[in-house]
Amino acid sequence: MCPGPNDIADRVLRAMIRPATAPGSPEFQEVFEQVHERLAQVFQTSNQVITVPGSGRTGLESAILSVLEPGDPTLTITAGYFGSMAIRIITNAGGKADEISFPWGEPLDLERIEEKIAQGGYKLVTMVHNETSSGALYQEAGAVARMAHQHGALFLLDAISSLGGAPLPTDEWEVDLCVSCSHKAMASPIGHGYVAVSDRAWSVMEQRKEPCRSTFFNLLNWKAQPSEEAVGGRTHRRPQVVFSSVHVYYALHEALQMILEEGVEQRWNRHRINAQAFREGIQALGLKPLAKPEIASPTVTCIPLPEGIRPADFLQKLRAEHGIYTTRGLGPYRENAIRIGHMGVTAIPRCILHTLYAMESVLASFGYPVSPGAAVSRAGQVYAEAQQHQPEIGAVP
Amino acid sequence: MCPGPNDIADRVLRAMIRPATAPGSPEFQEVFEQVHERLAQVFQTSNQVITVPGSGRTGLESAILSVLEPGDPTLTITAGYFGSMAIRIITNAGGKADEISFPWGEPLDLERIEEKIAQGGYKLVTMVHNETSSGALYQEAGAVARMAHQHGALFLLDAISSLGGAPLPTDEWEVDLCVSCSHKAMASPIGHGYVAVSDRAWSVMEQRKEPCRSTFFNLLNWKAQPSEEAVGGRTHRRPQVVFSSVHVYYALHEALQMILEEGVEQRWNRHRINAQAFREGIQALGLKPLAKPEIASPTVTCIPLPEGIRPADFLQKLRAEHGIYTTRGLGPYRENAIRIGHMGVTAIPRCILHTLYAMESVLASFGYPVSPGAAVSRAGQVYAEAQQHQPEIGAVP
Repeated sequence: MCPGPNDIADRVLRAMIRPATAPGSPEFQEVFEQVHERLAQVFQTSNQVITVPGSGRTGLESAILSVLEPGDPTLTITAGYFGSMAIRIITNAGGKADEISFPWGEPLDLERIEEKIAQGGYKLVTMVHNETSSGALYQEAGAVARMAHQHGALFLLDAISSLGGAPLPTDEWEVDLCVSCSHKAMASPIGHGYVAVSDRAWSVMEQRKEPCRSTFFNLLNWKAQPSEEAVGGRTHRRPQVVFSSVHVYYALHEALQMILEEGVEQRWNRHRINAQAFREGIQALGLKPLAKPEIASPTVTCIPLPEGIRPADFLQKLRAEHGIYTTRGLGPYRENAIRIGHMGVTAIPRCILHTLYAMESVLASFGYPVSPGAAVSRAGQVYAEAQQHQPEIGAVP
Repeated sequence: MCPGPNDIADRVLRAMIRPATAPGSPEFQEVFEQVHERLAQVFQTSNQVITVPGSGRTGLESAILSVLEPGDPTLTITAGYFGSMAIRIITNAGGKADEISFPWGEPLDLERIEEKIAQGGYKLVTMVHNETSSGALYQEAGAVARMAHQHGALFLLDAISSLGGAPLPTDEWEVDLCVSCSHKAMASPIGHGYVAVSDRAWSVMEQRKEPCRSTFFNLLNWKAQPSEEAVGGRTHRRPQVVFSSVHVYYALHEALQMILEEGVEQRWNRHRINAQAFREGIQALGLKPLAKPEIASPTVTCIPLPEGIRPADFLQKLRAEHGIYTTRGLGPYRENAIRIGHMGVTAIPRCILHTLYAMESVLASFGYPVSPGAAVSRAGQVYAEAQQHQPEIGAVP
């Protein structure tokens, strides 16, 4: 139940058991192309999706280094630990990084954001879609994108922990650089960052005055090009600036197959209901998730622990006695909160109910007063209500 | 028999079949540490080895971006296609790229190199250890390193296709930035670049005037640091600037285990004898490898084909009729040569003899006159001679 990397289905792991294949071979090219087409479906975009080696962080740096020139003013909206990742990359790259900050787990104030964007003359506005540190989801990303565009800025959305687990209409929201990765709600092994790139962003890259100083993380170098010879019916080719990690792509290919078999919207829905069951169970234990209910994330929950229970001790027991591995809070919540991921293959009743039962048991062992069975019972009610409308909710995907 | 990626042993592939593990978990930390210790043994170094996501090319860019500042003069020694990779990275990064060039497959002229280094006031001198495009190995790297150091320059060696397959005494040669990767002679899946970094190189990174503009490919950010709490008896921690591709590390861990079980020097020897058997077999077919015998690579051979036989046609038959996949020449040899990799698990008599038999068969089918069995017979003689001194040569590792 870790917020990332989360568990991986057996069929995804097994997809890696195949001989070495050359990244340029027709067999792999076909898989490579399908991976990118399937990723675009999950991103809900007709933009090109680029995959770069590494993780969400290399995706983020690719996106930023590709459009940013030294001295360029940028604005980052932060409401948690991961918001500052973009600021670090921008500052190191020689950009000017403004920040507008909101309390962890609280809703954003769009008026304040609009005012700030209007004043700044920014080239780039960035924000996190799903804050893994607080367990909050910000569905106002589309509104922020429109503000950015009105004032001449590109909009970058860090969707690292939401892609595949939360509604993310990249095109409808007009996200210029939509960044994500393999090992969160996509339920694939760590290995790549993804960036969906809008025409507006390509155009900024093509018109830079000073070239991008990185050869391999310049997204223009990865852009699919018209092909002289059609390959497998395809009329463009995707450059592999760095040799592709073929085994990880085979896993991703299978993980994407699972997502499309389930259906992207059904998957979002599954995450939403399971997250709700988990949160209401947590509340039945007498605890309160950090994020306000109206912005609670469908993929991760941050839970401040009762006074006197240290996260390290709690997590050690959760693992030793119940086999559940997860991690603690970040920043100001490092010493008093834990975080539970419920995404991909763990956003199912079996995992949610087991985690609630285990948390109740560990809390009791620390002398915290629990009402036995209350958490699991409350979650069960959420599932029962959901099943009246959607009978498939309880099914293992 | 592809020069990269080459084949992977079953036990290495199987090592990837395990549940997702958090990169920060104690279990993975132990594996991560062992991977780096084992890599240092193969590099023959007591320097820190850093692993970055991607492939040899990201290793190369990490090494260059970490030490290079805009305007810095550099010299690259080229004798083939891959030599120019460093020049592209340096130029894009704003450095000045001088080149000293030698004909493909011919020995280097150390006097000319020394003269050039003495005149240039270079900050960095780079060269390729094993040119995959021509099939040549340059064991003068140590001499070039000394010249570079005498004239105040760092020395970067691109050992992408030699590590694990050819003698590479990183410390004895005083290589400052020794770059390699997973999927050549290391016989592991594609996934990471490696850089062994000398104290001299760390010191240049620490003393730069302008900071490295890339956050995640700045090797200083990856440098192992003293740990506050010892983990598993270890007293330092290795930052993971980008989340580690744990599954690929598990494969690499097993591939390194195989290398150390065999013994690094025995492995070099195995590559040398099998390459010799292959080359002499090729000559018995009436063909002539591109590289001069005294610098012939132990991991890859480039073979110009007889007039009138196109590489694409030859390779298609080799694959369709004999199940052998490999690739054609590069640059000026793209339309008239093929390249055969004999590294890792394919540097064994079974693969060498089969490839010679298959090449003879395909040549004959194009009407080229062959003396049936001559190639295989000649290779057999090489093995027989080698076995008098080293009975284990014929054994599958």
